[in-house]
Amino acid sequence: MNLRHYVRDIPDYPKKGITFFDITPILSTPKAFRYVIDQLYEKYKDSGADKIVAADARGFIFGAPLALKMGIGFVPIRKPGKLPYKNRCVTYDLEYGSDTLCMHVDAIEEGDKVLMIDDLLATGGTAEGMVKLIREAGGEIVGAGFVIQLSFLDGDEVMRAAGVKHDFLIEID
Amino acid sequence: MNLRHYVRDIPDYPKKGITFFDITPILSTPKAFRYVIDQLYEKYKDSGADKIVAADARGFIFGAPLALKMGIGFVPIRKPGKLPYKNRCVTYDLEYGSDTLCMHVDAIEEGDKVLMIDDLLATGGTAEGMVKLIREAGGEIVGAGFVIQLSFLDGDEVMRAAGVKHDFLIEID
Repeated sequence: MNLRHYVRDIPDYPKKGITFFDITPILSTPKAFRYVIDQLYEKYKDSGADKIVAADARGFIFGAPLALKMGIGFVPIRKPGKLPYKNRCVTYDLEYGSDTLCMHVDAIEEGDKVLMIDDLLATGGTAEGMVKLIREAGGEIVGAGFVIQLSFLDGDEVMRAAGVKHDFLIEID
Repeated sequence: MNLRHYVRDIPDYPKKGITFFDITPILSTPKAFRYVIDQLYEKYKDSGADKIVAADARGFIFGAPLALKMGIGFVPIRKPGKLPYKNRCVTYDLEYGSDTLCMHVDAIEEGDKVLMIDDLLATGGTAEGMVKLIREAGGEIVGAGFVIQLSFLDGDEVMRAAGVKHDFLIEID
């Protein structure tokens, strides 16, 4: 199946000159959505991961079904103020400004083997923030799976520099 | 399985006097998370639904796996500015103020049979907004499934008044 067919290009979103890659056609096509989860499962079923960590909100759509299929826990990462129990947060630099990500303090324990899942690897800013948050909690990152990698941006290099082995299903360059 | 055991009470969140019911222990416990999806599947496998609609962000965690298991499409509902393609939005009243929910204009077609999924039915404000949005798009709501219903609030009555048959897995009163 050519998954690229189920990604819709939205020109000038969120601002002029940027093309956004919309994954909602994957979600509305059951065979495509199932194929994405099956492909991620094949890549990571022998990874030894104890937990999947995914970021609000599109990451939840792929991370939660994969955690269920792998029979492992699911950990949501969100912006400050969104998770009700005690939070552990990291602030990380972006091209312009900074951002903060949080998870519950009991979400990851020392030595947990963690698989990161997200819809998109672009500049790698969010992914790098997730790496930092997981490692500060004592988690060992066994892999990072993305539905789409934008290979004309730096995410690939950011993941390598962070020492995280990553993979993707759709490459856009 | 007593699912209530996997819901954590957070007193005084998001503000003093309110207790928040935290579903992250369900997510971190694979057998509990699987049980939730299996129970929802049993309730809705014969509903005739074509699509599951769920709201950002916790709704995605339950709605997406259920859509995959049922073999039907998944439609995300989000706040304005979050969905990249053309949006259809509704603004609805809350106890204090109002809120707006949006979906893509091609997400639901006239006559689609729609199942709403969310983690929590509380005052029913968000659920009522979802009903309005789905119906304005021409969708027929065949059911609304919630992981938790807070029966000391008005959500149950709001769903009845809207003519939507709803169900839940955990009742808190």
